Amino acid sequence: MGSGNDDTTSRQLLSSMAVNDKHGQNSPYFDGWIAYDRDPFHPTNNPRGVIQMGLAENQLCFDLIEEWIRINPDASICTPQGLHHFRDIANFQDYHGLPGFRNGVAKFMSKVNGGRVKFEADRIVMSGGATGANEVIMFCLADPGDAFLIPAPYYPAYARDLCWRTGVQIIPVHTGRSNNFQITKEALDTAYKKAQEDNLNVKGLLITNPSNPLGTTLDRDTMKSLVTFINQKNIHLVCDEIYAATVFSTPSFVSVSEVVQDMEFCNRDLIHIVYSLSKDMGFPGFRVGIVYSYNDTVVNCARKMSSFGLVSSQTQHMLAAMLSDDHFVDNFLAESSIRLAKRQSLFTEGLEKMGIACLPSNAGLFCWMNLRSLLREQTVEGEMQLWRVIVNEVKLNISPGSSFNCSEAGWYRVCFANMDYETMEEALRRIRAFVGKEAEKAIEVMKNMRNIIQKLRVNFSARFDEFMMSPSLRSPHSPMPHSPFVEV
Amino acid sequence: MGSGNDDTTSRQLLSSMAVNDKHGQNSPYFDGWIAYDRDPFHPTNNPRGVIQMGLAENQLCFDLIEEWIRINPDASICTPQGLHHFRDIANFQDYHGLPGFRNGVAKFMSKVNGGRVKFEADRIVMSGGATGANEVIMFCLADPGDAFLIPAPYYPAYARDLCWRTGVQIIPVHTGRSNNFQITKEALDTAYKKAQEDNLNVKGLLITNPSNPLGTTLDRDTMKSLVTFINQKNIHLVCDEIYAATVFSTPSFVSVSEVVQDMEFCNRDLIHIVYSLSKDMGFPGFRVGIVYSYNDTVVNCARKMSSFGLVSSQTQHMLAAMLSDDHFVDNFLAESSIRLAKRQSLFTEGLEKMGIACLPSNAGLFCWMNLRSLLREQTVEGEMQLWRVIVNEVKLNISPGSSFNCSEAGWYRVCFANMDYETMEEALRRIRAFVGKEAEKAIEVMKNMRNIIQKLRVNFSARFDEFMMSPSLRSPHSPMPHSPFVEV
Repeated sequence: MGSGNDDTTSRQLLSSMAVNDKHGQNSPYFDGWIAYDRDPFHPTNNPRGVIQMGLAENQLCFDLIEEWIRINPDASICTPQGLHHFRDIANFQDYHGLPGFRNGVAKFMSKVNGGRVKFEADRIVMSGGATGANEVIMFCLADPGDAFLIPAPYYPAYARDLCWRTGVQIIPVHTGRSNNFQITKEALDTAYKKAQEDNLNVKGLLITNPSNPLGTTLDRDTMKSLVTFINQKNIHLVCDEIYAATVFSTPSFVSVSEVVQDMEFCNRDLIHIVYSLSKDMGFPGFRVGIVYSYNDTVVNCARKMSSFGLVSSQTQHMLAAMLSDDHFVDNFLAESSIRLAKRQSLFTEGLEKMGIACLPSNAGLFCWMNLRSLLREQTVEGEMQLWRVIVNEVKLNISPGSSFNCSEAGWYRVCFANMDYETMEEALRRIRAFVGKEAEKAIEVMKNMRNIIQKLRVNFSARFDEFMMSPSLRSPHSPMPHSPFVEV
Repeated sequence: MGSGNDDTTSRQLLSSMAVNDKHGQNSPYFDGWIAYDRDPFHPTNNPRGVIQMGLAENQLCFDLIEEWIRINPDASICTPQGLHHFRDIANFQDYHGLPGFRNGVAKFMSKVNGGRVKFEADRIVMSGGATGANEVIMFCLADPGDAFLIPAPYYPAYARDLCWRTGVQIIPVHTGRSNNFQITKEALDTAYKKAQEDNLNVKGLLITNPSNPLGTTLDRDTMKSLVTFINQKNIHLVCDEIYAATVFSTPSFVSVSEVVQDMEFCNRDLIHIVYSLSKDMGFPGFRVGIVYSYNDTVVNCARKMSSFGLVSSQTQHMLAAMLSDDHFVDNFLAESSIRLAKRQSLFTEGLEKMGIACLPSNAGLFCWMNLRSLLREQTVEGEMQLWRVIVNEVKLNISPGSSFNCSEAGWYRVCFANMDYETMEEALRRIRAFVGKEAEKAIEVMKNMRNIIQKLRVNFSARFDEFMMSPSLRSPHSPMPHSPFVEV
């Protein structure tokens, strides 16, 4: 009868969410991980495997942490010294968290901010990593269809974390190399205006400070302008500060909490921080995400939501002791900063010697590498072409800028703190060899062009010959040339 | 101009979710916890405090677990023996989980099912406790506004876990004491039909087996009928089996996995299990929730969602070793069952001696206590009146049936496995004293009634005098009388 549609059998069995692609996992950012998983580098077992440079992990200070654990056996519920706490801790499931844990995190966050701000333990809300924290804050602030402004380039998994299950939309605020990817008032206004024209309900601005992927921090004046902007618009400011303690050189980190503290006019109900121990301490496996809000209703709501992503009480218990140890934390933060500075300069100077520039940075576990001159065309497709060569032939998993929603082609995020020194050296060797080969190819193409031109009896300038004989194009280990295919 | 509404300042700043009450936390189920938190019982420090009988915790076998930890120091990353794993584990954040953890959980689930079913490690998906697992499965199966049938009484926090952030609706399938709260085909059909009349899109049926709060299991034939029902309607069956290993007497537990294995006609894509180690192992603090689906798309989608609630890798690592230890697990499951049986019979026999009956049960960490005869009126208000007296005067936090959406007044869930023997004895003493006082009051009321009636010179039957002198009404420690105010 009728159309013959049997409503019971033909209707969709799963949710729209389960059958759409809005989780964003079909991104080259994740594809690179798959390439690594298939053929992971190992110095002796698989020395030609893919080196993982797509993972923003901080492995530089584990010796300090292991030493602390060694001398603090009572901090664990699984040692003879701590076992008497086992049953109480295994049973603990209050979504406020262990008081010692909340206090420890608040204290740690304060130290990360140079002691210039005090965080209240009662505003510390747990979540399953920053992933969970970012989703929780969206669920608290926005309804499906509502929008958040986010300066681009931004973290590729924001599509999953902020949007997938909440139905929130991201409006990118575009930045570019002309001013070193800084956020401008004009770009913000343009994005906000465009959203209004599109009838979107803009609920807030989300910034990542220090920036992933840029490795830069926002200065105090920019922060003040952003706080003023969101106050004027009466929208929220969510500050993802999960890389706060990775700042390794000046200018030092300025948290929104410090800015708000110093500003005369600010509606604090609009200010929220997302924090985590995944990057600053190097514990992504422990899933410690934090929502810190100045808005009481948000604290209450987020705490109820934390039932979906509480931190294991075993982990809370251990971290309560570790983060409360002033001597350890002070030393860890100082030493971590020194080691990150050293690693970053070793890596970026290595690149510089090949003629590869990175955006100047003072934070993060990665650099933002400019390979524009190696692109065959200045498009996303050109960027992806080069990326496929780097992943599949050079065997480095780096992440293309387009996966970070960067509006300019040719930028790549390269992580340097998730490996030992020798692996980093191997990565640099591979890049050097690759750049050398590209230079050879460029010479070949140039030569062919010259031959063609000469055959056409076009008078070829002496300066071109001179250029072709220049040292920069002679050796496979020479600094990277600008690609002849493209404008620079 | 016009209405004077300034769109920028007057619109709602937070999400609808943040300002509505749909988290369901304003339930007496949670209020009782607050009463306990304010004045917690302690045998020496606060012997008159509130005894927590609202928390379905399993504390009876911690000695076995502690012993295992003592002799397996290499299972922890925080012991000298296991510390060399620290950095790899702290870094591990793959949402598939540690292979050893997945294998361990699959093996454990199989043992809980008496080895009659094999679970595939690749279908084990992590979530933040059963709370997270239940939400994840809803996000996978249903869109906002879609509905799930759930036999009532059911777990009070389902409103939060299943509905709050997903927008899914619960349609209770009512059961009652006339057939010991069993699910009937008629009740299911009625609920399904009603939902269709209300234009609701019914996406599935969710059952808790063993039941919380009933402490009963579903027999094989009922399970088969339910599987047939959902197949006929082409809707999902979600089986929350988090109490599977708490079955302490016959009939033994029959998982949906076993039923599906034996049935000829069943669309397995419709079958999903929620599991957890919070109840069966007594580790609610560790937040181990599991989604196990026979539907590949659901497994894939749920795994992506597990990023929001991964189990701490520290905890995964320890449990991988513990759950893979055949000797330990076999002994633990057998001993846990014996201890639960003993505790349940001690507690319910204690109640029986006072004339308080519980629904006959073979599982769970609680009993379903019938206090209908003590209600002043057979309504939710009558039930809540009595509940307030029990919480505030008797100082026992038990949970009223209405918070479980029970359609009959006068039932209460009482947890007995989250305390030591002495505390349980103290709880029984308090109940005995209370029942005695209620009996005294009943006698007083009866006497007054008799006096009034005699004054009215109504001929009072000898049988009434006889009843008033019966042993059951003489002593404050006598079995509970039926309240004279109400029909039984």
